[in-house]
Amino acid sequence: MKTIAQRTPGFTGADLENVMNEAALLAGRLGKSQITNNEINEAIERTIAGPQRKSRLVSEKEKEIIALHETGHALVGRLLPGADPVQRISIISRGMALGYTIQMPTEDRHVRTKAELLNMIAFSMGGRAAEEEMLGEITTGAKNDFQKATELARQMVSEWGMSDRLGPISYSNKEEMVFLGRDLTRERNYSEAVALEIDEEIKKVINGCYEAAVQIILANRVKLRRIAGILMQREVLEGDELERLLTEEPAAV
Amino acid sequence: MKTIAQRTPGFTGADLENVMNEAALLAGRLGKSQITNNEINEAIERTIAGPQRKSRLVSEKEKEIIALHETGHALVGRLLPGADPVQRISIISRGMALGYTIQMPTEDRHVRTKAELLNMIAFSMGGRAAEEEMLGEITTGAKNDFQKATELARQMVSEWGMSDRLGPISYSNKEEMVFLGRDLTRERNYSEAVALEIDEEIKKVINGCYEAAVQIILANRVKLRRIAGILMQREVLEGDELERLLTEEPAAV
Amino acid sequence: MKTIAQRTPGFTGADLENVMNEAALLAGRLGKSQITNNEINEAIERTIAGPQRKSRLVSEKEKEIIALHETGHALVGRLLPGADPVQRISIISRGMALGYTIQMPTEDRHVRTKAELLNMIAFSMGGRAAEEEMLGEITTGAKNDFQKATELARQMVSEWGMSDRLGPISYSNKEEMVFLGRDLTRERNYSEAVALEIDEEIKKVINGCYEAAVQIILANRVKLRRIAGILMQREVLEGDELERLLTEEPAAV
Amino acid sequence: MKTIAQRTPGFTGADLENVMNEAALLAGRLGKSQITNNEINEAIERTIAGPQRKSRLVSEKEKEIIALHETGHALVGRLLPGADPVQRISIISRGMALGYTIQMPTEDRHVRTKAELLNMIAFSMGGRAAEEEMLGEITTGAKNDFQKATELARQMVSEWGMSDRLGPISYSNKEEMVFLGRDLTRERNYSEAVALEIDEEIKKVINGCYEAAVQIILANRVKLRRIAGILMQREVLEGDELERLLTEEPAAV
Amino acid sequence: MKTIAQRTPGFTGADLENVMNEAALLAGRLGKSQITNNEINEAIERTIAGPQRKSRLVSEKEKEIIALHETGHALVGRLLPGADPVQRISIISRGMALGYTIQMPTEDRHVRTKAELLNMIAFSMGGRAAEEEMLGEITTGAKNDFQKATELARQMVSEWGMSDRLGPISYSNKEEMVFLGRDLTRERNYSEAVALEIDEEIKKVINGCYEAAVQIILANRVKLRRIAGILMQREVLEGDELERLLTEEPAAV
Amino acid sequence: MKTIAQRTPGFTGADLENVMNEAALLAGRLGKSQITNNEINEAIERTIAGPQRKSRLVSEKEKEIIALHETGHALVGRLLPGADPVQRISIISRGMALGYTIQMPTEDRHVRTKAELLNMIAFSMGGRAAEEEMLGEITTGAKNDFQKATELARQMVSEWGMSDRLGPISYSNKEEMVFLGRDLTRERNYSEAVALEIDEEIKKVINGCYEAAVQIILANRVKLRRIAGILMQREVLEGDELERLLTEEPAAV
Repeated sequence: MKTIAQRTPGFTGADLENVMNEAALLAGRLGKSQITNNEINEAIERTIAGPQRKSRLVSEKEKEIIALHETGHALVGRLLPGADPVQRISIISRGMALGYTIQMPTEDRHVRTKAELLNMIAFSMGGRAAEEEMLGEITTGAKNDFQKATELARQMVSEWGMSDRLGPISYSNKEEMVFLGRDLTRERNYSEAVALEIDEEIKKVINGCYEAAVQIILANRVKLRRIAGILMQREVLEGDELERLLTEEPAAV
Repeated sequence: MKTIAQRTPGFTGADLENVMNEAALLAGRLGKSQITNNEINEAIERTIAGPQRKSRLVSEKEKEIIALHETGHALVGRLLPGADPVQRISIISRGMALGYTIQMPTEDRHVRTKAELLNMIAFSMGGRAAEEEMLGEITTGAKNDFQKATELARQMVSEWGMSDRLGPISYSNKEEMVFLGRDLTRERNYSEAVALEIDEEIKKVINGCYEAAVQIILANRVKLRRIAGILMQREVLEGDELERLLTEEPAAV
Repeated sequence: MKTIAQRTPGFTGADLENVMNEAALLAGRLGKSQITNNEINEAIERTIAGPQRKSRLVSEKEKEIIALHETGHALVGRLLPGADPVQRISIISRGMALGYTIQMPTEDRHVRTKAELLNMIAFSMGGRAAEEEMLGEITTGAKNDFQKATELARQMVSEWGMSDRLGPISYSNKEEMVFLGRDLTRERNYSEAVALEIDEEIKKVINGCYEAAVQIILANRVKLRRIAGILMQREVLEGDELERLLTEEPAAV
Repeated sequence: MKTIAQRTPGFTGADLENVMNEAALLAGRLGKSQITNNEINEAIERTIAGPQRKSRLVSEKEKEIIALHETGHALVGRLLPGADPVQRISIISRGMALGYTIQMPTEDRHVRTKAELLNMIAFSMGGRAAEEEMLGEITTGAKNDFQKATELARQMVSEWGMSDRLGPISYSNKEEMVFLGRDLTRERNYSEAVALEIDEEIKKVINGCYEAAVQIILANRVKLRRIAGILMQREVLEGDELERLLTEEPAAV
Repeated sequence: MKTIAQRTPGFTGADLENVMNEAALLAGRLGKSQITNNEINEAIERTIAGPQRKSRLVSEKEKEIIALHETGHALVGRLLPGADPVQRISIISRGMALGYTIQMPTEDRHVRTKAELLNMIAFSMGGRAAEEEMLGEITTGAKNDFQKATELARQMVSEWGMSDRLGPISYSNKEEMVFLGRDLTRERNYSEAVALEIDEEIKKVINGCYEAAVQIILANRVKLRRIAGILMQREVLEGDELERLLTEEPAAV
Repeated sequence: MKTIAQRTPGFTGADLENVMNEAALLAGRLGKSQITNNEINEAIERTIAGPQRKSRLVSEKEKEIIALHETGHALVGRLLPGADPVQRISIISRGMALGYTIQMPTEDRHVRTKAELLNMIAFSMGGRAAEEEMLGEITTGAKNDFQKATELARQMVSEWGMSDRLGPISYSNKEEMVFLGRDLTRERNYSEAVALEIDEEIKKVINGCYEAAVQIILANRVKLRRIAGILMQREVLEGDELERLLTEEPAAV
């Protein structure tokens, strides 16, 4: 149990319980009397990204896009200074996702520094940056990446006081009002001028992180294409394999 | 079953089940003990566009408008570089539609490139472009085309990061709040200045695609009029017939 | 039944059924065992404008205003190039209306051209234009005319892509959200700048149509006054009577 | 019954029935076996303004303000060109009102001309104009007058097309949406620029009418003070008394 | 009963009934068989400000602030030209209030002149003005004063037509819509430009009244400090005591 | 009981009852028949910050950040002129908080002066100021500090009349409307221009307080680092220990 907990920092107790139940179920379905590492790995992945959808037919062209996209996330996530290690890249569909890259912190985090947050946003940008620089084509696949990144940037600027221009002020537009358990409303309580400043600061943060992701992609084009090619064949790459592929020759940052 | 699935990429399992049930019902109504290709074709069409409404009286003048409008969709859809083949054009009323053109992707798509999305928008513009260029008259018939195209353009610009000006940022105005299963509210969380940029970028996308559609129409006026004329008589044109009509002499793009 | 359907293009099957039931009821009330043309005519009118309210006392001065107003509608509706024929003018109160002019299309229409829509708006403007040019006084009687015309102009500009300035884009502010069958909200999803463009384009459309209506009124002052005078006495004018009155000498357009 | 109906143009059938029931009740309370003119008069007044509240204690200073205010309404209402006759002025409290002036049209009206509407607004302004010009003091007593006048001016400008600047366009912000009988929402569907034009036009209308009211007050200061003085003593003035007081010497307009 | 009613102008019948019930209860609790003046006084105060909260511990420093604040209200309320007499000052906590000053009109008022309203606002400003001028410190204690004053100023400007700049127009943002007894919504129906004018006029009114309050405070510094000192000891001052303290030497206005 | 009440000014009677119940429970759980000071201390802390979460694993790096952050609060809170004493600093997780600093007023406060409010805001800024000046890194840990500070600044500016620029006016956007116990809505009732002034004044207040906090941090860098180091080892520092650590050599302000 402890080993599992160490492999899953950021998981709550309830998450861990889910993992164990899921693993027991998988073992039962396979007629095993013992839960092995295989079941536990699959159970962890399910908890993060949903059940596998092998029946989903994905064309070769799309597979290439997805492989480049995920490898882009992985490379940026791995090569940013101070970034967390990448635990796994996969292009097997799970739940709504066509692929995923899991970056696991080495230990639980309770506060995040501005530098870590910028890394997280750059990691989100890695997929689109790879599409743009490697394919010259951009796709709809980065929608969720942009949502996550924008939400982080918005919080940096308007809740965590991380923009010099806006300062240490809370500009949240979340105001909850409960009346007899009926209504919940959110109303912006700042002026249009502040709304514009928030938009401009979010744009500055996101564009800066996108630029950082592009630089890493451009400096590692050869490696990226090679790893994406291997990923297309194997469909899953574990963190140590990625590490080996990256360090066979030094990666530029 | 496999053949049907191949003819209907983009359909979910539930869609296919609907098709088979519908086909069985149609066969039953006609006293057939076997489902033939006819029933299956009709069932596919019903699933896409609703039941036929042959009783609807459409004047000759309107028939001409509808035929030109649908042929406009088909030509633009067929002649754009990289476009999906057109499967069928029809001017038989179905559900709310007076006519329809079915463009079927050759395989399931899970991500869409920017180029494919621009093609989809140009395809939507084909109907109105034909009205304007062939009749010198524009009608209310393009309302749904504009809704679909605008929605795509809006997502390109504000969710899929496909506008250089707005960048890889998510400006969704969809914020769902559920409280005790009662309320759901959407509130714009960006400034008026960004709202204007989004509007301008949507306009640029749509106008560019409209221009592309007009160019194809203008370069194929003779062919368009001829195909529309045949469509008025036959009411339905299958994809291979359209293909033959188009290739009897080379179509300009 | 067929004859009735031909006299009422635009009516749905349900509308026709209402007409027949209404006619049967009227015949029953009068102790007739047969439904005659009289009952059917009254039933058609009731379906369009509500039951007669003969008890409503209308002063002579108001009658004159109403007669001029309705004749204004009829003249503009009749004399616009490409307009549908006028079927009946009445200054007998029905439902909420003090008078009404019925313009029936000669056949069912499923799409409307821009020219037809401009005619429909000009027809709506005919009543006020007559008040202003013939009486030098304007009244509250045109409220519904303005609502209908503005709604058409708004759709032309923001849904049907009929404004060159706004282009083939859908700027609908109707967004329906249904959640557990409870809530429905509409939120404008375009910028203030676009809202202003829409307003300006609506104004341009309406003012242009009003100008067209005024020109027809001014060119037919003598005829308008004469027909309005006859309408005040007879209270109802059928389409063929109007036609005869108009053609006794040529009407200027 | 007919006489009553003639004395109460604008009343619906239901209003008249209310009047008769009220009169019967009043007669019953007084032990009368016959309904006399007294009961009917009181019943008409109750239907318009609510039951008398004689117990309300009003100071002499307030009585003077109210008398001048109501006489202001009456004078403006009576002396505007084309105005309806004043039927009664009262400073006996009824319902929420401390005083009231009843101006009865000589016949039912179904449409209103722009001139009549301007008169109605000027009539509403008469009370405040009298306060300002006769007392040099203004009070809270004109709140309802301003609401009625502003509402009329708003409709003139935005629904009845009576402003040259805004034209024959309907700018209503009343949009009703009913969904399963639950929700009703009004959303402004025009731009801020139009909202400003509407505000400016309303202001122009109201200020013009206020100016007209002031002119009448200033030209009839002596008469106004004399009539208000008589009203303070008698508490009620019937239309014919007012008429006599006004015509003892010619009133300036 | 009549004496009580005279001491409580502005009270409704229901308020008076509350007072009598409360007094009976208090007498009962004290084992008295007769209601005396003491019970009635306490009952009136409770109806205005809530029950005493003697257990609340207030520091000497806060007592000084409260005493100066309340004396500020009392002085401004008493010394403005045409103001109502002050009936009682208290620094005993009641309900949510730490102190209160009761200014009773000498008779019921049904309309308020602009001059009276400005006095009421200046009275509300008296507490803060005393804090600022006497202590050089301002506190949170004036929150309710500002709410009441702003609400009055808003009504003067937007409902009672008492601003020359905005004129006799009703700019209420209270629009009630009832549909099947369910919903009630208020929507601003004027433009941003008018909203700004309203804000500027409110500010002008409030600042003018604050200035007036400051002038009275500054002209009566010695008296204010002396009365506040006595109030700190005695905790309650009746109107006649205040009157005596003020008139021992003439108060400057 | 009295001693407890003296140690917890600001607590209501209900809070005190909670403390006693909590203490009794803790004593029971430990098998004690008597409630000792230990149980009471823990019970007070629980009432303020929630139960301890010793199982939460916090890395050394995070512990350092938290210790500097809390010591920052404590130093600013202690060294501002006129500030309340600090009762305890802790970096043991409780509820949602990773650490906390309790600043207890020496007596109950019912009104707050502007100076006290500015101190409260500067105290909130102390944590982030310490992060920035001591670590050169800023974190998400100050989110709640900013919310509290912004809310106080907003009330100072818009409810308590503590901004010279906005004046003694109440610009609350809280408007409650209750209709049949169903709906509650808040609508901003001031113009965009005022919204901007409020934002600017809030920013001025917060930035000024942040500057004050930074000055104290910078003047006490050595002391801050030393105290934070001790806090990292001991996890809790009582107010008297902090006092001793601060006064071993004079602290610069």
